Amino acid sequence: MSLNIVPFVSVDHMMQIVLQTGVETFLRELAAFIEVDFRRWERFDKTPRVAAHSAEGVIELMPTSDGETYSFKYVNGHPGNARDGRQTVTAFGVLADVATGYPLLMSEMTILTALRTAATSALTAKVLAPRGADTVAIIGNGAQSEFQALAFHALMGIRKFRLYDVDPSATRRCIANLAGHGLDCRACPSAEDAVLGAQIITTVTADKRYATILSDNMIAEGVHINAVGGDCPGKTELAREILLRSEIFVEYPPQTRIEGEIQQLAEDHAVTEFWQVLTGRAAGRVSDRQITIFDSVGFAIEDFSALRYLRERVAATGLFQPLDMLADPDEPRDLYGMLLRAGAARLDRAG
Amino acid sequence: MSLNIVPFVSVDHMMQIVLQTGVETFLRELAAFIEVDFRRWERFDKTPRVAAHSAEGVIELMPTSDGETYSFKYVNGHPGNARDGRQTVTAFGVLADVATGYPLLMSEMTILTALRTAATSALTAKVLAPRGADTVAIIGNGAQSEFQALAFHALMGIRKFRLYDVDPSATRRCIANLAGHGLDCRACPSAEDAVLGAQIITTVTADKRYATILSDNMIAEGVHINAVGGDCPGKTELAREILLRSEIFVEYPPQTRIEGEIQQLAEDHAVTEFWQVLTGRAAGRVSDRQITIFDSVGFAIEDFSALRYLRERVAATGLFQPLDMLADPDEPRDLYGMLLRAGAARLDRAG
Repeated sequence: MSLNIVPFVSVDHMMQIVLQTGVETFLRELAAFIEVDFRRWERFDKTPRVAAHSAEGVIELMPTSDGETYSFKYVNGHPGNARDGRQTVTAFGVLADVATGYPLLMSEMTILTALRTAATSALTAKVLAPRGADTVAIIGNGAQSEFQALAFHALMGIRKFRLYDVDPSATRRCIANLAGHGLDCRACPSAEDAVLGAQIITTVTADKRYATILSDNMIAEGVHINAVGGDCPGKTELAREILLRSEIFVEYPPQTRIEGEIQQLAEDHAVTEFWQVLTGRAAGRVSDRQITIFDSVGFAIEDFSALRYLRERVAATGLFQPLDMLADPDEPRDLYGMLLRAGAARLDRAG
Repeated sequence: MSLNIVPFVSVDHMMQIVLQTGVETFLRELAAFIEVDFRRWERFDKTPRVAAHSAEGVIELMPTSDGETYSFKYVNGHPGNARDGRQTVTAFGVLADVATGYPLLMSEMTILTALRTAATSALTAKVLAPRGADTVAIIGNGAQSEFQALAFHALMGIRKFRLYDVDPSATRRCIANLAGHGLDCRACPSAEDAVLGAQIITTVTADKRYATILSDNMIAEGVHINAVGGDCPGKTELAREILLRSEIFVEYPPQTRIEGEIQQLAEDHAVTEFWQVLTGRAAGRVSDRQITIFDSVGFAIEDFSALRYLRERVAATGLFQPLDMLADPDEPRDLYGMLLRAGAARLDRAG
């Protein structure tokens, strides 16, 4: 392909790639890429996301680099968007070559972010959940819920799901969408009911405010909480008391302290970086009675992994659109000459 | 257009838009948009660009917002790129709606950046250059040089240009490219010769190092220096002595102190923000003997203005490509269902 052409994965191509690969296979392979990058965490440039907040929501840029490859994601979060038929969260991203600065791939990332978030949830739960965990409660049955269930199934073999949403139609739709995967999904009348018998509790609600999706009395000893929905300043899901009696695992502390559940805690409250658990530098779960929390906010390295994996799938499937995104003069210093020649070519065609 | 479609301006469309508009008209209108945004400078969110440096170059993200519209640009700077037929600088950018977070426009910005840089140079020179300036020296005759000359012509009516480049073929090409605009372009044997009789001196070289393109003895009283090429840490073009006897004007001090010529000066060296001159809050040139410097590094607001102007041109010309960039489920919370329906549609087609 010519130097100036950037492969672009549209929403439609992304869906075709995921369907051709199989959603669960995609999630499993994607989780493997994320794990590889977590294991070499120290090699990455890391920075909290660059956020532009407004009354309606937030627009963020999430860059990172491992010194050879660079990526960034554009992502918005606008809770009111659903009112006029828009997505609460949409995203796109770019993978680029550090040596030349040239983009290697551009992609929609609304679907890809849902997949990488779910893959990261299951990857961390696989390490942190109590032994023999076989039931997951999913509280919040919106856009992320099916991806969560399928990731827990794909990576951990979990089949039993207990679902709750303030909107019962969301739960019904989630269960209908999951038909055919051999899962045992139960609609529950309340969050209190949903967590009964679950060793893993996933919270994935979308409200932009301090909410208490889980209160202290709902949390039994030994559970693993996968807290996904609290992911920006002023948006949390867990009662502070739960945090105080749990071991908390995070992606990148400087970002999580701003955006995660731990924004409710003192700035120096001890947390463990998940990559250190993976590499054996820090302990994960140390007892069956311990409560573990993965305070997930979504970090740039997970998007990097997702784009890196996608690039492989794009090469395998050929499902992309060539985008004329970079100026490509015959002589790199002659940008204006390229414009002149384009003008001459237009006149020729018109003549 | 459907909510999920983002208009994309490719390199080819950009060239067509510029040619249809006319390069000089484009530069004049673009400068007017930049001026409007400089005049309401205080309304913008401002942050130094987010840079990922490597041995070979830099990849940067440049976001800004006026509270209603958001933009960011991706831009790289890799001086060694020309060796294998790549551009030293390439860029693309996005304009988005703050209220929804949805992108409004995506565009190539290699050509657009060259245009906005030149438009900003001429806009600032128009305000800061000595009265009656009729000759511009352009030192460095690479990709930015023709745009500079045309902007000075379009905005200030300047016809006399004295050109110098370490590579004489670059100067010859620049002069050939500018034929037909009624300009008097002279190739000069040295930088010392080029500045003779010029009231405005533009430096637009590309080396990534501390260079001395202009030494102190070359600079007569009363000139305006438009210093464009020094634009990242470790890359400057002007002898420090020149800076010390000049009045220095900048875009956004926190960024210019890192990237501009003034990285050679103390952190508290007095500089004037150009927007304050435009709005009458600070003095511009106060005497015919004063040396003025516009220490141009390129700020996100200029890209914002450029994308805002481009959006108008795109609406007028229809020259864009619709990009399927945002997931658009019938029901915003049903992202997974959209994937399922895409699968069902595929089976239908296959059946």
